[in-house]
Amino acid sequence: MRAAVLRSGRLVVDDVADPTPAFGQVLVRTLACGICGSDLHFMRHAPRMVELSRQMAGPMTGSSLDLGRDIVMGHEFAAEVLEPGPDTVAPPAGTVVTSLPVLVTAEGFVSLAYNNDFPGGYAERMLLSAPLLLEVPNGLSPQQAALTEPMAVGIHAVGKAGMSQGEAALVLGCGPVGLAVIAALRLKGIEPIVATDFSPRRRALARTLGAHESVDPREEPGIEAWRRVDGRKTLVLFEAVGVPGMIDSAVRDAPLGSRIVVVGVCMEDDVIQPAFAIAKELNLQFALGYDPVEFSGALRSIAEGEIDVAPLITGSVDIEGVPGAFDELAHPDAHAKILVEPA
Amino acid sequence: MRAAVLRSGRLVVDDVADPTPAFGQVLVRTLACGICGSDLHFMRHAPRMVELSRQMAGPMTGSSLDLGRDIVMGHEFAAEVLEPGPDTVAPPAGTVVTSLPVLVTAEGFVSLAYNNDFPGGYAERMLLSAPLLLEVPNGLSPQQAALTEPMAVGIHAVGKAGMSQGEAALVLGCGPVGLAVIAALRLKGIEPIVATDFSPRRRALARTLGAHESVDPREEPGIEAWRRVDGRKTLVLFEAVGVPGMIDSAVRDAPLGSRIVVVGVCMEDDVIQPAFAIAKELNLQFALGYDPVEFSGALRSIAEGEIDVAPLITGSVDIEGVPGAFDELAHPDAHAKILVEPA
Repeated sequence: MRAAVLRSGRLVVDDVADPTPAFGQVLVRTLACGICGSDLHFMRHAPRMVELSRQMAGPMTGSSLDLGRDIVMGHEFAAEVLEPGPDTVAPPAGTVVTSLPVLVTAEGFVSLAYNNDFPGGYAERMLLSAPLLLEVPNGLSPQQAALTEPMAVGIHAVGKAGMSQGEAALVLGCGPVGLAVIAALRLKGIEPIVATDFSPRRRALARTLGAHESVDPREEPGIEAWRRVDGRKTLVLFEAVGVPGMIDSAVRDAPLGSRIVVVGVCMEDDVIQPAFAIAKELNLQFALGYDPVEFSGALRSIAEGEIDVAPLITGSVDIEGVPGAFDELAHPDAHAKILVEPA
Repeated sequence: MRAAVLRSGRLVVDDVADPTPAFGQVLVRTLACGICGSDLHFMRHAPRMVELSRQMAGPMTGSSLDLGRDIVMGHEFAAEVLEPGPDTVAPPAGTVVTSLPVLVTAEGFVSLAYNNDFPGGYAERMLLSAPLLLEVPNGLSPQQAALTEPMAVGIHAVGKAGMSQGEAALVLGCGPVGLAVIAALRLKGIEPIVATDFSPRRRALARTLGAHESVDPREEPGIEAWRRVDGRKTLVLFEAVGVPGMIDSAVRDAPLGSRIVVVGVCMEDDVIQPAFAIAKELNLQFALGYDPVEFSGALRSIAEGEIDVAPLITGSVDIEGVPGAFDELAHPDAHAKILVEPA
């Protein structure tokens, strides 16, 4: 089958072996798979990410990951059931499903798709775990169902913030993560939601997803926009950019006693000035991923129309187009989410 | 009157003008005043601290602080009432009191003792605010009452951590702040409390104040000691050292999902690796100071014998001895708290 393969740090399209489902697994046909910023991060910082996760002995990118061997990424997917493994109970063929990006194997849990042995959604077919399958309800399109995963990230980050109505939010960065946070904040009834991004297109998307105000931080700093719009409620800042300097900038800007949720993933060393954080008694909550309840909740919210993810989809490519799509995503102004649709 | 004066970045002992109480103020005789790490910090980093607080427009070290003029520091004090200002209701002369280190003036609140106009506890006499006076109860000695302020810092930090029984604590650094945190943890019934410090004397003090285990981090990292002693309960780490690198070290060591309370004041730029904090979804709570309820609670806990602060007092000097005591405190092995006793 065809797949976009990460090989020696570069993306190439090639034929790879078809996967065979073992007990408890299901062979599926990939219908749509979002390209995630984490994949761009991984291409750029893979050795560091593997080294960090080796140091942490973390479960997500196992220490057995070999960067010298092929990796087929893609962890935001919707797929169609083809056939179950032996003695495996699964939905009937043709059912449209999504799943947590985790594969249960006889050797343990494997991250989909940061591993060498099981392809992710940038391939025509993949293996999923039968017990983790979620049927896509309400006739929701596979394209929109593929956005379950990034929306779960936003819902999780907002949950981690422990926000309640009567608090305000400032979202720094309107890439897919920031936009998912905005949608989750709106779903929770938070008002106002103020967002910042350099890109006019992303600022417009922020408003579509639920931001009450979005500004270019070069023209008006986010904190000033929040003061203008509201400025009285307890403020929670969401750092969704993930480049060095952003945390320190949030720490400098944050009002006394406020909370900062760091959901942008910065893979480099970063400098902060603790004196500011101390003097203002700030709280920094770092957030990653989601739990199964948040994941299925995201799917339900999308399917029931509580979150309209359609505007997030700004492009679509087939597998041959994946390397070009990665190049395009280096220019944040042009896109939010590009879907890979193998068929 | 005699006072230890911060003048052009150096401590000198000199005669300064006697203060005169205005309405709402009380002239007191300083009985005991602890030398605080913040004062050593302030000597070393005063221009940066003033600049940072100017940037933050914070209330504690007002922008009107002039480093070119004399400053008489000392904010951990017990004192004896001499005479009230005009039309001011105050306890009778001879009453032993302590107070939040804040003076109410006609122009507003003034920080005792980071200001140019009102001496702190490194002088023979000072002014306090009549409404803020707390009578020292139970015949508690002024020496021990002077430790109310640092104990309030510990109680506040533990309160900020939102800890409950059934959680464990690791305290990094057993200077006065770390020791106050340990005492507050013990008061709250936290077990185990594991502490680290290079100094054998401070490690012994940590045990006296309530730590169940204390280790030299060069011989056994704190996190390993915690694993050895307990290793199952949810862990809260207290960073009470306040030098660059400590926050990152705590972030690297902290178990998945744990909380780090930063109570050590690092005045310099500091490098962290956000990737670790994100992957482990850590929470960093920065803590400073205390509120009036925590302050009076600290005094009550000391007076009722719930916290025995006597072992913390490792030295005593008169005003002439203050510059030498500051020099001694540069060697952390020798001391916890040195009291200035003007009489």
